[in-house]
Amino acid sequence: MKKKCLEAVKAVSDRRLWNRIMEMAEFGATSAGGVNRAAFSSEDIEARKLLISWARELGFMLSTDDIGNIYVRRPGKLYDAPPVLTGSHLDSQPKGGKFDGAYGVLGGFEALEAIERAGLETKFPIEVVAWSNEEGGRFQPGAMGSAVFSGEYPLVEALNTMDRDGERLSDALSETLGATSGLQKRKIPFDITGYLEAHIEQGPILENGNHTIGVVSGVQGLCWYRIEVYGEEAHAGTAPLKNRKDALKTAVHIIAALEEQMADDTDTVRFTVGRFECSPGAPSTVPGKVLFTVDFRHPDRHIFEETVNLIPKICKASAGRCRVDVERLTYTEPIAFDSNIMNLVRDSANALRLSNIDMVSGAGHDAMHIAPLCPSGMIFVPCEKGISHNELENATPTDLADGVRVLVASLTALADT
Amino acid sequence: MKKKCLEAVKAVSDRRLWNRIMEMAEFGATSAGGVNRAAFSSEDIEARKLLISWARELGFMLSTDDIGNIYVRRPGKLYDAPPVLTGSHLDSQPKGGKFDGAYGVLGGFEALEAIERAGLETKFPIEVVAWSNEEGGRFQPGAMGSAVFSGEYPLVEALNTMDRDGERLSDALSETLGATSGLQKRKIPFDITGYLEAHIEQGPILENGNHTIGVVSGVQGLCWYRIEVYGEEAHAGTAPLKNRKDALKTAVHIIAALEEQMADDTDTVRFTVGRFECSPGAPSTVPGKVLFTVDFRHPDRHIFEETVNLIPKICKASAGRCRVDVERLTYTEPIAFDSNIMNLVRDSANALRLSNIDMVSGAGHDAMHIAPLCPSGMIFVPCEKGISHNELENATPTDLADGVRVLVASLTALADT
Repeated sequence: MKKKCLEAVKAVSDRRLWNRIMEMAEFGATSAGGVNRAAFSSEDIEARKLLISWARELGFMLSTDDIGNIYVRRPGKLYDAPPVLTGSHLDSQPKGGKFDGAYGVLGGFEALEAIERAGLETKFPIEVVAWSNEEGGRFQPGAMGSAVFSGEYPLVEALNTMDRDGERLSDALSETLGATSGLQKRKIPFDITGYLEAHIEQGPILENGNHTIGVVSGVQGLCWYRIEVYGEEAHAGTAPLKNRKDALKTAVHIIAALEEQMADDTDTVRFTVGRFECSPGAPSTVPGKVLFTVDFRHPDRHIFEETVNLIPKICKASAGRCRVDVERLTYTEPIAFDSNIMNLVRDSANALRLSNIDMVSGAGHDAMHIAPLCPSGMIFVPCEKGISHNELENATPTDLADGVRVLVASLTALADT
Repeated sequence: MKKKCLEAVKAVSDRRLWNRIMEMAEFGATSAGGVNRAAFSSEDIEARKLLISWARELGFMLSTDDIGNIYVRRPGKLYDAPPVLTGSHLDSQPKGGKFDGAYGVLGGFEALEAIERAGLETKFPIEVVAWSNEEGGRFQPGAMGSAVFSGEYPLVEALNTMDRDGERLSDALSETLGATSGLQKRKIPFDITGYLEAHIEQGPILENGNHTIGVVSGVQGLCWYRIEVYGEEAHAGTAPLKNRKDALKTAVHIIAALEEQMADDTDTVRFTVGRFECSPGAPSTVPGKVLFTVDFRHPDRHIFEETVNLIPKICKASAGRCRVDVERLTYTEPIAFDSNIMNLVRDSANALRLSNIDMVSGAGHDAMHIAPLCPSGMIFVPCEKGISHNELENATPTDLADGVRVLVASLTALADT
C-alpha cells in the first residue's frame, strides 16, 4: 500500500464513525433501540439533511438525480473523469436496525473524510452515494434508487408507485427534494469507474469464523414460489384416511420432498418455508386448503436455474390426491462481483492484517444493480449473532471502522493516487 | 319379528318423517340450506315448541329436567317401569345441516307414532328424548344434556357456563323452560331399560358400501394435542441451514414421524392435523414458532391408549434444535356399545332385508354418556357423500325411514311386546 494511502487508512476514526451512525439512528429511533425510517418520510428527510450538512462542513460537492439519490463528491485531479463510487442507503425496515444501509453511507463518508484529512490526491473523483428506497417497506420494489439509476426499473413506474395510504412516490419525492434543495441535479446513469459497497453481513458467518472482513463474491440468486394445495374439508372423526384429500398432509409431503432435494453438504443452499396457512384451521376438520411459500437462494447460476425449474415439478409430483398450484413470485439471477475488485478488497484486508474470507451475500443489495454497469464489489463486516432486519441489530465500533479502513485502501487504489 | 311389531314397522311413513324434518329445519334455516340453531336460542325454543306440539297432538306425556332435556313418553303396561329411550338432539352447529341430531329426535318420534298407530302394547314405556346442547357451539362442552343426565358433568358447572356474549346458561335455560312450560319436571338420572340413538353416519362408509344401516359397535376414543414448536427467527437469505432453529421444518418432521406411526392397513386410525399456524409468517423469515394440533381417534382401547402416550414422545424425538411443548387438550376413551343391542339392531335390519354393516362411530354422540348407565347402541343411516357439520348435509327420505323401521323393530323388542 502506498504511504499516502496508509495515512488515509490511519485517519479513519472508530469513534467519529460510531458517533455519526448513532446520531443518524436518532431519526426514526424506536423505543426498542431500532430504527423506522421509511423512504421519503420526514425521518428520511432529516437523515438526508444530516448527511448533507456533514458534507457541506467538509466542503464536498453535492448532487442528486430524478429518483433522489444523493451523491457526495470529493473531486479528483481529472475533473470530469467517472467517479469511484461507494455507498448504500439511509432508509430502513419498519422495525430495522441502526446499521443496515446507514453503515455503507456513513462508512463511505468516513472514508471520504479520512482521505480528505490525509490530503490524498486521487486521479478520479470519489463519491459517496445514498441510494433512495432500498428497503421497499413503503414503496415497492426495494433497491429502487439503484435500479432506476441503472435503468433496470423505469423512472416513470417508480414515480407512479403508491404507498399503503395512497400517497404517490412522485409527491413524497418532491417534498423530499424540496426539503433538501440546493443540490445539483444530475442525469443518470453516469459513468462510474468502480463501485464498492460496505455493509453489515446480516448473517452469522463472519462472527462464527472470527473474521473481520467478508470479501463478497456475489449475491445469490433468489426465487420465491407461492404454492397452493387444494384438498377437501372432511370430518376428522369420520373420514377414512384413504378417502381424504388432506391439503395439509400433501403440503407436508411436498415440503419434505423439497427438503430432500435441497440437501447440500456445503451448506450453500438457502431454502425456507416462511409462510404457511391452513384453512379452515379447526382441529377436527381435515384442511381443505394450504398456502405456503418457498424462498430458494443459491449463488451458482447453474444450480440456481436447475433447482428453480425443479421446484414446481417436485410440488406436482408430491400432490397425491390434491390439486397443487405453483406460482413464481420473484426471480433474480445470481450476481457475480468483479474479480479484480474482490482481489483488491482481499489484498487491502490482508495488508491491514484483518482476517477475511470470500463469501456470498445472502441478501440483495444496491450493488446488484450497479454490477452490470462497472466493476463492482462489496465489503462485509460482522453483525452481532447475524441478527438484522431487527431492532436488535448490532455491530462493534472496531469492526465497522476496520471495514472502512479496507474501503479506504480499496477506494484509493481504484481512484489511482 | 312378531306380527304386531311388523305392523308398527309398516306404519312408518317416509313422507311424514321427511316433512317433520323439513318443518323443523325452518327454525334457524340458513340461506345456504343449512341450519343455525344454537342451544337455548330463540330458534331452539321454537324447535322445542314444535316437538311439544306434535307430542300433545298424539297424546304423549311430556317431561323435562334440570338441564332442559325433553322426554316424550308413550306409557307401557308396567306404568312405573324404566323406559326404553331413544333420541338425539335438536340444537345444531352454527353452519350445520338439517339432519344431524334432528333425525334422531324426529326419527324416534316417528317410531313412537308408528307404534301408536299400530296400537302396539309394550310392557315398558318408550320415550323419545331431545338432549340439550349436544353441539356445544354456544355453551361448551357439547353433549351437555346427556352428560349432566349421567352425572358425568356437574349440573352446577353446566348452569354457570357463559356464552361468548357473557350470557349465563342458567338464564338462557330459564327462558327456554319458561317458553315451554307445562312439562312435568323429573329427577335425573332415572333408570333406563335400554337406549338406542338413530343418527346420520356423518361419514362416507355406508354410502360407499351401498349399505342402508350401520350397526354401531361403539364410539372411537378421541384425543387432542396442542403442539408448540419454538425455534429462532432468522433471515432466509443469510442464515446457513445448519445454524437454523427452523420451527416449521421441525413441525414438518414431527408430522411426518407421527404419520409414519399412524400407518394402518385397516384404515381404522383417524389422524388429523387440522390447525397449523406459523409465525411470523413472512416468506423471507425462518419461522420462529409453529403451533399445530393433532386429532387422534381409535376404537380399540389398547391401541388408543398406547398411541396417545406415544404422540408426545414422537414430538420430542423429532424436535431437532427446537423446543417442543406438547399439551393434551381432550381425552375421551373409546366406548363399546352393548353387544345384545348390536345383535338386536343387526337382526332387525336383516329381518327387514336392509343391507347393514357393523361400524364404529367416528364422531361423539349423546349415546356415549348413556352407555355406562344401561344397554345402549346406535343406528346409522347414510348421508350424502359423508358430508356433515355442513349446510350441504343431505340424506334420502327412504334411508331415513328405513333407519326408523329398524328403530321400531328394535325398540319394540326392547320394550317387550
